[in-house]
Parts: sequence; C-alpha cells; structure tokens
Amino acid sequence: MTSSPTIDPDMIDRLAEVAVKVGLDLHEGQDLVLTAPASALPLVRRIAAHAYKAGAGVVVPILSDEDVTLARFENANDASFDVAPGWLHRGMAEAYGNNAARLAISGDNPMMLSAQDPAKVARVNRANSIASKPAMEKITGFDVNWTIVSYPNAAWAKLVFPDLPEPDAIAALARAIFAASRVDQPDPVAAWAAHNANLAQRSGWLNGQRFASLHFTGPGTDLIVGLADEHAWKGGASPVKNGITCNPNIPTEEVFTTPHALRVEGHVSATKPLSHNGTLIENIRVRFEEGRIVEAHATKGEEVLQRVIDSDEGARRLGEVALVPHSSPISASGVLFYNTLFDENAACHIALGQCYSDCFTDPNMSAEQIKARGGNSSMIHIDWMIGSGQVDIDGVAADGTRTPVFRQGEWAF
Amino acid sequence: MTSSPTIDPDMIDRLAEVAVKVGLDLHEGQDLVLTAPASALPLVRRIAAHAYKAGAGVVVPILSDEDVTLARFENANDASFDVAPGWLHRGMAEAYGNNAARLAISGDNPMMLSAQDPAKVARVNRANSIASKPAMEKITGFDVNWTIVSYPNAAWAKLVFPDLPEPDAIAALARAIFAASRVDQPDPVAAWAAHNANLAQRSGWLNGQRFASLHFTGPGTDLIVGLADEHAWKGGASPVKNGITCNPNIPTEEVFTTPHALRVEGHVSATKPLSHNGTLIENIRVRFEEGRIVEAHATKGEEVLQRVIDSDEGARRLGEVALVPHSSPISASGVLFYNTLFDENAACHIALGQCYSDCFTDPNMSAEQIKARGGNSSMIHIDWMIGSGQVDIDGVAADGTRTPVFRQGEWAF
Ligand SMILES: [Zn+2]
Ligand SMILES: [Zn+2]
Ligand SMILES: [Zn+2]
Ligand SMILES: [Zn+2]
Repeated sequence: MTSSPTIDPDMIDRLAEVAVKVGLDLHEGQDLVLTAPASALPLVRRIAAHAYKAGAGVVVPILSDEDVTLARFENANDASFDVAPGWLHRGMAEAYGNNAARLAISGDNPMMLSAQDPAKVARVNRANSIASKPAMEKITGFDVNWTIVSYPNAAWAKLVFPDLPEPDAIAALARAIFAASRVDQPDPVAAWAAHNANLAQRSGWLNGQRFASLHFTGPGTDLIVGLADEHAWKGGASPVKNGITCNPNIPTEEVFTTPHALRVEGHVSATKPLSHNGTLIENIRVRFEEGRIVEAHATKGEEVLQRVIDSDEGARRLGEVALVPHSSPISASGVLFYNTLFDENAACHIALGQCYSDCFTDPNMSAEQIKARGGNSSMIHIDWMIGSGQVDIDGVAADGTRTPVFRQGEWAF
Repeated sequence: MTSSPTIDPDMIDRLAEVAVKVGLDLHEGQDLVLTAPASALPLVRRIAAHAYKAGAGVVVPILSDEDVTLARFENANDASFDVAPGWLHRGMAEAYGNNAARLAISGDNPMMLSAQDPAKVARVNRANSIASKPAMEKITGFDVNWTIVSYPNAAWAKLVFPDLPEPDAIAALARAIFAASRVDQPDPVAAWAAHNANLAQRSGWLNGQRFASLHFTGPGTDLIVGLADEHAWKGGASPVKNGITCNPNIPTEEVFTTPHALRVEGHVSATKPLSHNGTLIENIRVRFEEGRIVEAHATKGEEVLQRVIDSDEGARRLGEVALVPHSSPISASGVLFYNTLFDENAACHIALGQCYSDCFTDPNMSAEQIKARGGNSSMIHIDWMIGSGQVDIDGVAADGTRTPVFRQGEWAF
C-alpha cells in the first residue's frame, strides 16, 4: 500500500505505542476495534503490532476510504442516503459489551464532502448517528477504554499547508501531529504522565469551586453557560467502568464538564472554522435563550449548520463546555488543523448535542438522572471553538459571587 | 492509496461491472458486504461505484491487510490464536439475513503465512471458521446473491511470474485475471451469458444420467467417488433463494455436484499444488475407505494438510466433486495461479469438507435431509485439483453400466 517516505517511521511507531499504552492502556486479553481511513495503514499496522504486544485478543481494523465514500454521493439512488450499516454498528456495540477497546484514527480529508449536496450529507450523517448510537453510548459512557489519535492524509495536509508541495505538506502535518501528541519528546509516555497530572490539578480546582455558571466575554461573545447540577470537571486521563484509565484523546489540552441544557443565555461567536464531516463552517454566530439556540448564522456553510442544529431537539443545546489556555502548545503552534481533535485543543470550546454522562459527581447515573440535572441528550456531539487570547471567563457561584477563571485566554488561578 | 499504473483502469472498471452485474446481479435496494485485501482498493472503489449505480443501499468494505495479519503472528500472546471477531461474523450473518449481497475480492499473497507456525495458523483458521459458520451457511446455502472476483497483489504476482520484474509481473497477473474473467472480450456481459448457457447444457446432460458414482483413473489415481442420493449438478449461474441468479465465482469453468460422504474408495493424487491460507501444499496423495481419508501425504506442507483434515470429522470426507475440461481457458493459459479460484477452474477437483446444500434435486432440504442423502458437513471447504490431460472419468450407473464422461481430460459426450 502507501509508502510514506516523508513520514518518519520511528515517529509512527512512537505514536502507535502512545496510542496503545497511554491512549488505551490496552489490557491483556482485550480485543480492539480500530476504525481508520485506509490512508492511515502505516499507523494501523504499528498499532496492531503494539496492541498484540500488549496481549490483545484480536485487532479488527474497519477501514474507510474516501473514494468509496465519494462513489456513493456520485452514483447512489436517493434512497441510499438514509441507509446505514446497522449490523456493523450493532456488532461494535456487542464488541464493547464484551470489553473490546476502541481506537479511532482521525485522518480524513476535511473537505471530502464539501462538493456534495448538504442535504444528502446530513441524511447519511443522521442515519449513521442513529445506527451507531448504542455503540457510541458505550464509548461516551466510558464502558470501555477508548482513544482517538491522528494520521496525515495528503488532501488534509494540503489544506493545512496550502503553500507547500504535497510531500512537504504531508511531512509538516506529520510533524505537527507528532509534536501535539507529545511523541517527539524523549520519553513520550513520561511526558503524558506529567501532562495528565497538570490537567488533574486544574480540574480539581474547578471541582472545588462548584460554580453555577461560567460567563464568557470577548469580541462578539457575551455568553452565560449554566453548569449542570452535580457537574464534575474532567481532563486528560479518564477512569473507565472496566477499571482501566484511558486517555480518550491524543492530543488533549482541555478541562471540560457538562453544561445545563436549559441554562445557557446570550450570544457567542466561533473563533475558528468548524470542519464538519467534510464541510467547512466559518464564522459561526449563535444566540441562546433558555439553553436553546434561537438564532444561528455562518458566513460559509450556514446551510450545513442549520441542518446540524435541526438534527434533533438536543442538537440546539449544549452538551459540553471546555477550557483550554490560549498558550496551549497547539494554539501556540499557530497551525489551524481543520480537525476538531486538534483545533478544540487550541481554544476554549462548547459542543452542541450529547453530554458526557460521566461528567457528574456520580458518573454512573441513569439517563433520567442525567436529564434531571441538566445533562443534554442528542445523537450529535459537535465541538466548536469560542476561545481566543481576547476571551475572559468568570466563574459565577449560586449567590452571584464572581471568580476569575480565564483572563485574556489564560488560566487566572 | 496505491496507484496502479501497470493495471489498465478500464479493465478494472470492466471487472467491477461484471462483478456487480454478472457476479451478483445486485438488485436495487440491496446492501453489499465487500471483503477485500486493502491492496485491492482500486477495484473496491469501482465496485462501490457500480454497486451504487445498480441501486445499492450501502456498500460496506471490510478490508484486511497482510501486515496487520503478520503483526499478530509476530507479536501476539499464545491465547490470541484462538480468538476470532465473533461480533463481525454475526453482523455479516445479520446483514445476509436482511438480504445484503456479498462480494469477496480474492487477492492475498498466497505465501503470506508460509513462514508462520502451522499450529498457530490452524488455530486462527479454526477460530475464524467456527465464528463465521452462521454467515457462511447463508452463503453456501445461497440465501443471498454472492460472488468472488480477484485482483492482483505484488507478492502474488511475483509468485506466479517469478522471472518478471515486479511491475511487469503485476501487469501480467492482471491480464491473466482479466482474460480468465472474460472482461477482455468486446462485451463481457454477453460473453458471460454464452458461457453460462454452455455450462447449463453440460450440467443438464449429467443430471439426466443419474450416475451413482464417478470413476477417476489416471497417473497415481484410481478413485471411485460415490454421488449423493438425489444429487444435482450445477455450473455457472446459480439461482438464489432471494429470487436472483448470481455467478458465485468469476471466473468459473466447473460443473459440480455433491459426492456421497460415505461412498468414496481408492487413492488419488493432486495434479496441482494447493495454496491454503498462505501455505503451499504440494503433491497431495490420499487414500479413502468408505468415504473417509485413511492416509494422507504431501511432499511439502504435509503438516498443514494433516491439520486441515483433523479440523473436524467432516474434514476427512468429500463435499464437492467438479468437472473441468483440460482445454478450459485457464488450463490452456498454462498459468499456475496459486489461487483456488483460478486453479480449480483449470482442472477437475474435489473438495474436503462442507457440501453445497443446494446441489440436490430439492435445493431447500434441512441439514438432516442432506445428511441422510450423503451430503457432508464440516467447518472447512477446501478444493484441490485432481484433473489433467491424462485423466479419464466414467459415470457408473446403479446397475454398474459405465458411460464415458471424460477422456484424456476432455468431455466425452
Ligand atoms: Zn471538548
Ligand atoms: Zn467534545
Ligand atoms: Zn469447485
Ligand atoms: Zn469448492
């Protein structure tokens, strides 16, 4: 398959090792479900090797391919766009139910679907969201250890580094991914241990404050994000119900919790473009009333944005609020990745849709208990960036007392 | 992914069209499960395009990769070799249960596992056979339309054409595949219609004879193959329980039926090497008593052969007997493909293991009814070649009357 002379094979191996040891902490006897674009095969192969070294039962790669995806949009009957492979998603849910770990490699061309009919894109996404919900609930609920890592793709690299020739762009994107994933450091596993300790300290302080809401102010933004009752802040390593501790995102810089689905007020402007399933949505501006988006605009991709928030009732409400200092390494790199895994770690962000059910002081509540505390429910979860060096955040207690949390995009405590 | 400058893209597209229109006759609204090595992506993409043009719901490629497979043999714990992804096989069975069609691309390196421990290879094969049995029963029972086509792989091409440089070997193997699959003819779909008519005429004659057994004689071979009671000969296009007619093998030259599992006597020598899951088994010689292999030898790969026939009780008995004239195009090409899909169509062959449940006058019998008529049951089905230009075959009626079926490797009627 692809030979990748522009990507350092030693770094590919290190990223695979971090994915298995830090991202998953894969335990002996666990099976692994590995979703990836076929263009990421060089990383898939090294992950398989490290997973088997760690004692994996069987590693099952489920590889997607951009041209196969496009073949559908270019040739299929109208009825096809509401069809999803339910059997595959039910199978994955069964695998997670049997304690298989899950590793996703993110590395598609962010513009893959940009030339396709947004209505068809939305229908395919909706069909897949519905079909994958049982599996995704086991992931978002941390029933099993899971992680997402990234690998370059030629079209993605050219989008991020448009002025470089393709091989140089791929090499530059690979270096940026490796740096953000801390695998260019002398001992990547130790670097992750130190980073996790820092994130734990930040979330610990926030959990001690018990804020009722966060108040974001900045250019085009004056937003009060109520926090869910009994919310808990998390960041970095995450305990899993199977007793393992995983790092669900490689990289990660965020400390995050569950907002209250009914208590978000004001307006907010995105500070970076959002790449959503192959479409770029630029300059998002929305207004919330009682937790619900009542107005939404974008200078580009507004139709896709409207379809996203029309996906279901919960798609217009928040399921996550996350704090990331403006000086975080990904932000400092100045690279706009057009990929949420990286860009969400360059800035504070909010997510439309499904909340993380474990961002509560009791991480094992029922759907009803979560809803009663303000946790949102939806078949989507889409992060978008609202932080920058010009954004301040106050924590507001139940009695109205204000405590600085961020000043000029940096931690204020 | 792979660019294939040595393989004519127009021929790839023609093979994809034949696979979808002749191999599957994919009907509007059918989903498609497409298993393939990742190295066959150029064909996978064109098959996806033709499947969607034919009205497919969703096409799901399940791509394997040689290096991922090898990573297991090189790194896994001992316990791994008994693990199969049951969830994936159950999912496929569910898909077929919902009328999804199945297309397999055969194109692995035939020597992929030749350096691995045969015991571990056998354990993995056994685990996968058990896990895939419910899905495979829906395929062998023709619950849905299915087909197998082939695509070159560099290592395979070098095995077939060892004296050519790799790009030339790939090009030569591609041309041989396209010719055997009749896609180099002016109208491949029409060529397949004519070929199917010829195979139907041969199987019709055999069905009229109602032979009790076939008697094979040739160098190293004196074998009586009893035929199952109420057996039916088939060849080429095959009716499917969902009402479609598919061509399960592209290419195919054989006319075949179900032998009687208890009525095979004598000895037989293979006329070509057998490539089995990455191991080459050469010069097989076996002796049958009352349908059962009581002695088995090979000059190379004998250990793998012994493990194969020890898989289960039915693995020592025959599940198929097939007639292919020595002058068939694949035999005439003189190419030894090291791939059963081709080599079985260059010679008469027998298969160890599971019978085709539809090779009976009533194609919808229960497992008990099939067994009562002599149909074999096993988790394996492995074809090996026993025909050559020196083999004669007589059809023997219940009263002992003999009718020439093959003389010197050619049809005698
Ligand atoms: Zn986040
Ligand atoms: Zn998020
Ligand atoms: Zn056969
Ligand atoms: Zn066969």
